[in-house]
Amino acid sequence: MKNYIKYHPWEIIEEGFNTELNRVSESLFSIGNGKFGHRGNFEETYTGDSLGGNYVAGVYYPDKTRVGWWKNGYPEYFAKVLNAPNWTKLSIKINGEILDLAHTKVIDFKRVLDMKNGFLIRNFSTKLKNGICVTVHASRFCSLDQDDMGALSYSFTVDQPAEIQVSSYIDGNIKNEDSNYDEFFWENIKSESNDNLCTLILRTKKTHFYVGVKTETNLFINNEKINHFQSLKSSTNSPSVSASFSIQPNQSITIEKKAIVLSSLNVDKGLIDQVLVNEISSFQKLCYEDLLNNHKKAWAKKWNESDIIIEGDIVAQQAIRFNIFQLNCTYSGNDERLNIGPKGFTGEKYGGSTYWDTEAYCLPFYQSTADKSVARNLLIYRYNHLSKAIENAEKLGFSGGAALYPMVTMNGEECHNEWEITFEEIHRNGAIAYGIYDYINYTADKKYLAEYGLEVLIGIARFWKQRVNWSEEKQAYVMLGVTGPNEFENNVNNNWYTNKMATWCLNYCEESIDWVKENYPTDYQRICKVSDFDENERKAWALITNQMYYPFSDKYNIYLQQDGFLDKELIPVSQLSDDERPIVEHWSWDKILRSCFIKQADVLQGLYYFENEFTQEELQRHYDFYEPLTVHESSLSPCIHSILAAKLGDEKRAYDFYLRTARLDLNDYNNDTRDGLHITSMAGTWMTIIKGFAGMEVKNDQLIFSPLLPKNWESLSFKIKFRDEIQHVFLDKNGIKININ
Amino acid sequence: MKNYIKYHPWEIIEEGFNTELNRVSESLFSIGNGKFGHRGNFEETYTGDSLGGNYVAGVYYPDKTRVGWWKNGYPEYFAKVLNAPNWTKLSIKINGEILDLAHTKVIDFKRVLDMKNGFLIRNFSTKLKNGICVTVHASRFCSLDQDDMGALSYSFTVDQPAEIQVSSYIDGNIKNEDSNYDEFFWENIKSESNDNLCTLILRTKKTHFYVGVKTETNLFINNEKINHFQSLKSSTNSPSVSASFSIQPNQSITIEKKAIVLSSLNVDKGLIDQVLVNEISSFQKLCYEDLLNNHKKAWAKKWNESDIIIEGDIVAQQAIRFNIFQLNCTYSGNDERLNIGPKGFTGEKYGGSTYWDTEAYCLPFYQSTADKSVARNLLIYRYNHLSKAIENAEKLGFSGGAALYPMVTMNGEECHNEWEITFEEIHRNGAIAYGIYDYINYTADKKYLAEYGLEVLIGIARFWKQRVNWSEEKQAYVMLGVTGPNEFENNVNNNWYTNKMATWCLNYCEESIDWVKENYPTDYQRICKVSDFDENERKAWALITNQMYYPFSDKYNIYLQQDGFLDKELIPVSQLSDDERPIVEHWSWDKILRSCFIKQADVLQGLYYFENEFTQEELQRHYDFYEPLTVHESSLSPCIHSILAAKLGDEKRAYDFYLRTARLDLNDYNNDTRDGLHITSMAGTWMTIIKGFAGMEVKNDQLIFSPLLPKNWESLSFKIKFRDEIQHVFLDKNGIKININ
Repeated sequence: MKNYIKYHPWEIIEEGFNTELNRVSESLFSIGNGKFGHRGNFEETYTGDSLGGNYVAGVYYPDKTRVGWWKNGYPEYFAKVLNAPNWTKLSIKINGEILDLAHTKVIDFKRVLDMKNGFLIRNFSTKLKNGICVTVHASRFCSLDQDDMGALSYSFTVDQPAEIQVSSYIDGNIKNEDSNYDEFFWENIKSESNDNLCTLILRTKKTHFYVGVKTETNLFINNEKINHFQSLKSSTNSPSVSASFSIQPNQSITIEKKAIVLSSLNVDKGLIDQVLVNEISSFQKLCYEDLLNNHKKAWAKKWNESDIIIEGDIVAQQAIRFNIFQLNCTYSGNDERLNIGPKGFTGEKYGGSTYWDTEAYCLPFYQSTADKSVARNLLIYRYNHLSKAIENAEKLGFSGGAALYPMVTMNGEECHNEWEITFEEIHRNGAIAYGIYDYINYTADKKYLAEYGLEVLIGIARFWKQRVNWSEEKQAYVMLGVTGPNEFENNVNNNWYTNKMATWCLNYCEESIDWVKENYPTDYQRICKVSDFDENERKAWALITNQMYYPFSDKYNIYLQQDGFLDKELIPVSQLSDDERPIVEHWSWDKILRSCFIKQADVLQGLYYFENEFTQEELQRHYDFYEPLTVHESSLSPCIHSILAAKLGDEKRAYDFYLRTARLDLNDYNNDTRDGLHITSMAGTWMTIIKGFAGMEVKNDQLIFSPLLPKNWESLSFKIKFRDEIQHVFLDKNGIKININ
Repeated sequence: MKNYIKYHPWEIIEEGFNTELNRVSESLFSIGNGKFGHRGNFEETYTGDSLGGNYVAGVYYPDKTRVGWWKNGYPEYFAKVLNAPNWTKLSIKINGEILDLAHTKVIDFKRVLDMKNGFLIRNFSTKLKNGICVTVHASRFCSLDQDDMGALSYSFTVDQPAEIQVSSYIDGNIKNEDSNYDEFFWENIKSESNDNLCTLILRTKKTHFYVGVKTETNLFINNEKINHFQSLKSSTNSPSVSASFSIQPNQSITIEKKAIVLSSLNVDKGLIDQVLVNEISSFQKLCYEDLLNNHKKAWAKKWNESDIIIEGDIVAQQAIRFNIFQLNCTYSGNDERLNIGPKGFTGEKYGGSTYWDTEAYCLPFYQSTADKSVARNLLIYRYNHLSKAIENAEKLGFSGGAALYPMVTMNGEECHNEWEITFEEIHRNGAIAYGIYDYINYTADKKYLAEYGLEVLIGIARFWKQRVNWSEEKQAYVMLGVTGPNEFENNVNNNWYTNKMATWCLNYCEESIDWVKENYPTDYQRICKVSDFDENERKAWALITNQMYYPFSDKYNIYLQQDGFLDKELIPVSQLSDDERPIVEHWSWDKILRSCFIKQADVLQGLYYFENEFTQEELQRHYDFYEPLTVHESSLSPCIHSILAAKLGDEKRAYDFYLRTARLDLNDYNNDTRDGLHITSMAGTWMTIIKGFAGMEVKNDQLIFSPLLPKNWESLSFKIKFRDEIQHVFLDKNGIKININ
């Protein structure tokens, strides 16, 4: 755990420069606009330890799988989000010495993420080896107003007369650190620089995505624009323009750089070059300040929809805004081909691909804070992948239109290759079905079933039907060889959560069929045809839902995580010593698997979903049994525990778990923030407030609140969009007030 | 399944050249002498599909592990036997055209492995593209008489006058096909050729093993020795000598090549060059025929110890001799640093390393057909690895001298990296302890316990003690998260075989302690000291053996392979269609894991070991339950089933399984003979005859036979070494006769 970020209600502030924290800070100071984004890397040269990261939504590369021992059913490729050209790059040479904080003496240093206005600021002074002191003020943003555009302003002064050489370039020599075979994933299509313009168009190998970047750089001395740029002979992938001049200590130099970032997802390949020219021209008359102001207005609108105000607890306030800010940087929801990578635009880890996190954790945030089309697009993403999910199931031996959605995917194809996850962590199929239910329950857009949803539900129901088998021994249906949400158990039988999800899916599919049949008979006919669906299939489904086996302990009066769970030694986490944690770093996999320790909510994840089927006493019993065994080594665990603790009126634990999820990255609890931020768990943080402390639920088409205010909060207020109305929710010690716009 | 090898009691014969079968034949025609060996590759150039393979015992390389997803506890390296310099190579140029069967018209072709005399013959005629017909007679051997030496004779005639260029070289440009990162594993130390001698000394990277090869090549025209060799400028790693001359159709050319193969396992690195010189000189006066005759005598002696004669069934006769031949090629037992790789000197697969196969399948063959020092050396190999086994256990979180022997090893370090095997297939520890018991039971060398065995048994007992845990639920000790011998089940709880092995080990260790304490009190004191052993440890062992849980089905009245086995759909293998088999090739891993299909004997492996604890009815019940579910996709499965079937008096199944194991490679049942022969399963074949059909057991220090002669066998006879006496066993329809030498 770290604690170097200064508290502030609207800002993330780092003071002083600690090279060992640089990767962590680069993650924390990431910005994006849903279409592209980047880590908080420096504009100027930095040769110290750094994870460079610039990403363009939807642009991926199918890296060849690396595997120790091949198992039939593995995918050959792992599609990963690519490190893309970096438009922010500058090189500053002062009396021949390159400004590089890895080699100079840093006098003071401050990074600020202004979340309210959505931009990144960095101010520092440093003394070069040649003795010259430089003071820099830099800021930049990825425009939320014009989502093809980004801009930066970089000003500096020196304390002695000096010869300056400024180069402004696009860095196209970019690799992924996680490349399996150390490959360069890009081919050069065009690289050009003239006057103050640089253009770089690259194409991904294999997938042939085009990414085009064009920058315009302007130079000001004491706010007066000068222009003596020259294009430099530079490496093929890094077009550059450069200017040389002398300055005096009383002069301030400002470099303003605007960038257009396009990809062939949105612009025809053949037109990218021309559209770059047009777009950069359209911004020519606007200076950095103008562009930033438009961007700020767009963020103001975003905050108006999604802000949460916590009075009396700056630690909690800063954290929730950081989570909301990053969620809005990651996904804007206007493109059904895109989804939410676990790291968003803040790192490479997990390949930037889509996991069940989207449906299980992210959907509620987007459906409550944005237009319903945003959540709908997340669902249509999966609808569009249905045929791939059917192929994926066929690869494993399923048939008849059974669909198994991939564990990890970019374009619908499975990317992951650990048998115990890829083949066995099939509860993801349940989350995808639950997402449809959740969306419809929240938005009342029931027609979605007829348009898209039912086809997906049928494919999933068919999968569960084939995935269970009848146990003569138990005289019940069982589900063998699965991995539940708790990935510290592999290849178990009858994971309660998965069994429960399976029967829920079958029931929901049945209900949905009845409803579509009655309300949209023409659609129903169409769906039966395209899915080759026969009502007789339902008979087997009904048998399964009626005779599914759920592991249960009479002794503890609880559902068991899986068959044989009580054969383990039940040791509470509190008995682990600090130097054993996180166990995933300190223990062998053998020891972990045989232990009782739970990585993330598993039975409790099911109770969270199906809370209404259980009494408060049942919830309490399960919570009391499982929580003490849970090490929360998944970022997705604390949020569910916070919500359940709030429902159980356990204010202290609800609050503690809130801080753990909300400040997961700010405090680097899992010692992995350097790899990027835990974007999908940030949506879980949002849920802890809305579903936990405010206790919001939709029942009978009504929003219901059962609040529990943390003791040290004076008030909690937020807006929530529900069925096209904005509800203002205000909660303090006197109770809850709801105003509807 | 293939069936192209001609039947013959003493020979393996291939007629005609089928390029698609070449890799299979290269495996079948492998030869070796325990110290080095090679596949049946051609002496002359062959550019068609081929797996080149020359191996020197004990020379390995720690190839960097390739892994998809790292798990704590994995080893960083996988030690593998190396493809070593090939001394057999010739290049024959006739009127400028290189003789290469990939490009000529083969007129006739015959390969013969003369098992009686232990050498390989190849005769063929072929028409070159230039129209010349060449007739070749080649033969070679790896000397059993002088195990640093090999020799070949290669004669040919042509049907037209021709210009000939013969090159004789050592091929040191050798790679492993299974190299993880396509690395070249060798460094050149010396490469030289002059007169008719070539010398190549290579050193392995990292491990720094030296391998030195020196060849002497002599040329005869019509049996008259001529010598106009020149050394050629050749590539660094392939020293070569060459001769050019003209020949007439009535002239026959013979190339005789002798080779010395040394490694730094046996000769000091600095002396290798000199020893090569000395040894090649010592053979200078002997021609190929002389050397071959000495070699034949050595094989005659070997056969005298280990032959099995089956009258009336040439198919069975050929097969058992092939198995015995290859076992004797692989391991001679005079070096405790060596062991038996699953492929011996016949291929790269499985890295040439040591598996539990050695103790479970190979030990009985060597202890019955060779001096007891041979089996003892196999045990001392493990004794020497005890400290590594303790380290290996520590890596997984065990302590206090608990030893987990590696699944796959060369020098005692674990090499394998699949968590479900590496961490979980721990029954191997049981086989290693059982090997000690088996050796002592057979040889009466009980002092071995005091000298070496007990230390190993204590390390293993400590492991089991820590590996089980008390189940409150079951009120018994359980063993969670294991993989039994049936690798089609992973991470199961309470695999009966493993639980049984564990308690057997604890009991055997207890007995052994008592015996050593009483009979060798000084040794006992020493062992207590080096092992830091305290008698109090025994209390926990006794609790475990008394209260171990064994899964049992009341319904079927049998032990269950593991917890939950009866939740599976029990479908007999007979219901699988042919095009689904082998399932490991046709099914996804997901489907295999969830099926009831058993890869190899698991519960039955335990019944085989502990047969005397069960009634004939119990054996029958278990056999009838498990055999129909077994797909025998491990080469180690049919032998155990054959033995059990024989014990149960089921002559037909015993015989069918005998053929399946005995002709596994000759008929390529598993479609993988191309990778090399299944050497360790060949020892299993030997057991089917000795322990199955002859029904040999050691009871109360006596050899007991309970024979069952296959219907079509007129007689079965063999010699067996038991406690320094050779017993001649003869079995026909009239019963069994045993004469003691």
